[in-house]
Amino acid sequence: MRLALLQLNPTIGDLAGNADRIERAVRALPAEVDLAITPEMSLTGYPPRDLLLEPGFVARSAELAAVLARHLRDRCPVLLGVPERNPAPQGRPLFNAAALLEEGRIAYWVRKSLLPTYDVFDEDRYFEPSSGGQTIPIAGRRVALSICEDAWNDRDFWLKRRYHVDPIEIADRAGADVLVNMSASPFASGKQDLRERMLSSLARKHDLVVAYVNQVGGNDDLVFDGRSFVVAPSGEVIARARAFREDALVVDLTKGTAGGPLSAVEAEEEEIYAALVLGTRDYARKCGFSRVLIGLSGGIDSALTAVIAAEALGAANVLGVLMPSPYSSGGSIDDSLDLARRLGMATETLPIAPIMAAFDDVLAAPFARRLPDATEENIQARIRGNLLMALSNKFGALLLTTGNKSELAVGYCTLYGDMSGGLAVIADVPKTMVYRVAAWLNGRREVIPPAILTKAPSAELRPDQTDQDSLPPYDVLDGILDRHIEQHESCEDIVEAGYDPATVRRVLGLVRTAEFKRKQAAPGLKVTDRAFGSGWRMPIARGDWDAGASSAR
Amino acid sequence: MRLALLQLNPTIGDLAGNADRIERAVRALPAEVDLAITPEMSLTGYPPRDLLLEPGFVARSAELAAVLARHLRDRCPVLLGVPERNPAPQGRPLFNAAALLEEGRIAYWVRKSLLPTYDVFDEDRYFEPSSGGQTIPIAGRRVALSICEDAWNDRDFWLKRRYHVDPIEIADRAGADVLVNMSASPFASGKQDLRERMLSSLARKHDLVVAYVNQVGGNDDLVFDGRSFVVAPSGEVIARARAFREDALVVDLTKGTAGGPLSAVEAEEEEIYAALVLGTRDYARKCGFSRVLIGLSGGIDSALTAVIAAEALGAANVLGVLMPSPYSSGGSIDDSLDLARRLGMATETLPIAPIMAAFDDVLAAPFARRLPDATEENIQARIRGNLLMALSNKFGALLLTTGNKSELAVGYCTLYGDMSGGLAVIADVPKTMVYRVAAWLNGRREVIPPAILTKAPSAELRPDQTDQDSLPPYDVLDGILDRHIEQHESCEDIVEAGYDPATVRRVLGLVRTAEFKRKQAAPGLKVTDRAFGSGWRMPIARGDWDAGASSAR
Repeated sequence: MRLALLQLNPTIGDLAGNADRIERAVRALPAEVDLAITPEMSLTGYPPRDLLLEPGFVARSAELAAVLARHLRDRCPVLLGVPERNPAPQGRPLFNAAALLEEGRIAYWVRKSLLPTYDVFDEDRYFEPSSGGQTIPIAGRRVALSICEDAWNDRDFWLKRRYHVDPIEIADRAGADVLVNMSASPFASGKQDLRERMLSSLARKHDLVVAYVNQVGGNDDLVFDGRSFVVAPSGEVIARARAFREDALVVDLTKGTAGGPLSAVEAEEEEIYAALVLGTRDYARKCGFSRVLIGLSGGIDSALTAVIAAEALGAANVLGVLMPSPYSSGGSIDDSLDLARRLGMATETLPIAPIMAAFDDVLAAPFARRLPDATEENIQARIRGNLLMALSNKFGALLLTTGNKSELAVGYCTLYGDMSGGLAVIADVPKTMVYRVAAWLNGRREVIPPAILTKAPSAELRPDQTDQDSLPPYDVLDGILDRHIEQHESCEDIVEAGYDPATVRRVLGLVRTAEFKRKQAAPGLKVTDRAFGSGWRMPIARGDWDAGASSAR
Repeated sequence: MRLALLQLNPTIGDLAGNADRIERAVRALPAEVDLAITPEMSLTGYPPRDLLLEPGFVARSAELAAVLARHLRDRCPVLLGVPERNPAPQGRPLFNAAALLEEGRIAYWVRKSLLPTYDVFDEDRYFEPSSGGQTIPIAGRRVALSICEDAWNDRDFWLKRRYHVDPIEIADRAGADVLVNMSASPFASGKQDLRERMLSSLARKHDLVVAYVNQVGGNDDLVFDGRSFVVAPSGEVIARARAFREDALVVDLTKGTAGGPLSAVEAEEEEIYAALVLGTRDYARKCGFSRVLIGLSGGIDSALTAVIAAEALGAANVLGVLMPSPYSSGGSIDDSLDLARRLGMATETLPIAPIMAAFDDVLAAPFARRLPDATEENIQARIRGNLLMALSNKFGALLLTTGNKSELAVGYCTLYGDMSGGLAVIADVPKTMVYRVAAWLNGRREVIPPAILTKAPSAELRPDQTDQDSLPPYDVLDGILDRHIEQHESCEDIVEAGYDPATVRRVLGLVRTAEFKRKQAAPGLKVTDRAFGSGWRMPIARGDWDAGASSAR
């Protein structure tokens, strides 16, 4: 039996374009394939979100699925991911489904049973669950068909199970010897290892071949890493598609463990970098931009963002904008120019002192008898935001925001200032990881001037300022943030782990207070298990349940 | 039997404060009450969102529920809304529950069966459904206990049902003669009528008294309107609590239809206005602000926002900021000053021409040989945003945004400019409704200068500009937007309803393109069935499935 795993990069909502992409991918396959498998919701792109609430969108998807079946009547059967209307008078309106295109028609419908509704996923919002365990005969084998989460509820692998049924167990009882899983699983650092361990465990337990087909590409805050793979019943991964790009993996199951190409899985810094490059490239491309702008501050965050942008879109399509103020160090300007030279990108320098002076004049009366404070720092940041957006508007280039996750967590950033932009490239990368990725990059080739990596981080919004005037050291800060944000730990829990109580209280208070800024942040590319994006849903106006617990210590 | 419906306004996450509020409300009741009922999740406030993912938060809620039971041991039984940990090894981590506090302990747990996961609701993200139909004996009656959505799945009332079970039917079979429903149902214009029709129909069908207790208060984008009520088995509403404020409704069921006070339900303009006032007051208060700022343009949107702010916080706590440019008409300045005089609010005038000139100078080189376009208009809007935020930062006043729903839908607004602010007061009010609410207000007392209501709407960002240079007339625009946004209609559907195809295509294209702006918008108070807030989840980077359908006509 020969399976083709079509690891595709659809554009959400571009039904005609996606159908065309699928048709071309199937036509490019060798003749002897028995089944071609596309990712979950391959016709709509995943996640289609509230497009699914438009009946016209669902109807058009169904029409195009039928058209695609006719176009591919002379080809192998194809599993196409597409929403299906729930015909019942009760229950949610749709199924998260897949259509088996065979001999010019839709021969079979597969419906997803387990609907993720946590983190970035909202599937219960749209879909009715199926009862699971569908199998069909193909090329003399019994093939179990499953969609993404369906395979993620094994009682032996998980300590705590979110669902009450296990569709794979049901399929095993029905005699399946191949398990197909159509997925759209977003990237997070280290996740491929979990996927492979989990599906290897399933393969061994049920004595199955597992063919896992993942979507690839960036869709707003989510980056899909691809890395589709095939596991033998022994649990061995016998083939793996490439990461972060489209691929077609053809595997001949009769050949045992000599299944197919086996792409390597990258180290953490490398996979994060690759995810950010793809996420940036696809956000720009799918929004219709070919050029981007970045404000260059001379710091590590804007330097890393510039490297990513240059790799994603080509250095010729990246403009670095320097906007020195009287508080900018000469080093910052030189370092930014050095960076641009190394990357081969153009720069523009727009000194902001005259605009600062104009604001000072206009605000002189209302601010009389008031001391300077963060207000004046924010005015500078917002002048820069305005200049960057003006360049973006005038030249049709996408502005990239350069803030990191640690800053965004504690609100060490200016709303409408340095937070301005269409995409926040490293908004889910903690500052300590920003340094690690930069060091890894420079290990390949020294693209970032060493001075940028070694100087003390500073916003340079007042004389001699450094980040550590306002924040704990970044290794301490990131330790606290990881426990609170990713592990859901309370103030008390974190203090018990050995952190200074006053520091923990202060950091958690800052995280709470900064919620209004994150509400208005640009989409940020998710690379950790919990990002401040569509998977972070926190009230803004709220009381502090945790203060008593911590101050009582 | 005497029931007390405690219509409370909790602050989300302020567990200790909410417990104290509940205790005081119960202690203030007359002695002969048999059961006091608080709203859904009354201890945490609704919606607690991802606070529910913090185990410490859930544990502290349980502790405080037990404390509250002990404090109220000498009082009548109390139904308290509180999350309950799901002890099972499978399923979602919590129940959306209520504890019956009786004789110093938690005597009974009620668990919600139907978990809304649509629009602004995400309950499947946190909660495991119960199997429904719980009844308990109280004061000689059999009382069915239900939580909000549990009562919203009657097969005779709804054409299409979202859930497979009806907890009320189960409770009826168990012999219930009183139905208690603990709710947190957000306001939308016209919704009270639906609630009362639906529960009247249930009361008649099952021959039950229905006691419906709703939360009141603003929580970010959601405003809860209260209006708790009691329905007799005849279907008649025999008591209704006040709208948009805390209340305690005590009803003696032995007295038949002479149940209790019966507050009136307001007309559409009045209820929308009241919702916006409460939403603004509570957002400011719960975020810790006593003062607000508004940019006054001389237009109807900022005028209405100013009236709302003055009513919400007192005119002495509202500052109107005029920021005239060379394109501002003299009328706009006079009208704004007139409005401020009528409201009794202070103003500050900050002419922006010198700052515009400074930007022109700095951008002269990069913009050489480019014609003026929307870029220059956006620069002005962003200068104003910067000034408003500077005043907000310096004086600790919350900046209110003044854009309406029609503008936000089509992107006729400047990101980081007039979109700047912590709360978008009228962001869910279509422009035609802005006029209706303003006219209703002026019918009470002429607070808005008539010139503001009669002049042609204009952004005044270039000479002689009016909104209708760029947009269709607002009645046409709002008609198209309502069909697309609230009724989920496609381009084809709307054209079939009689709208001009080119106009529909243009408007829907603008809605799609403006998604990146809405992603970064301030929270806006929801007053329609579908707002651009937590219930609108649309991809930004996306293709256009609908273009072909419409251009093919």
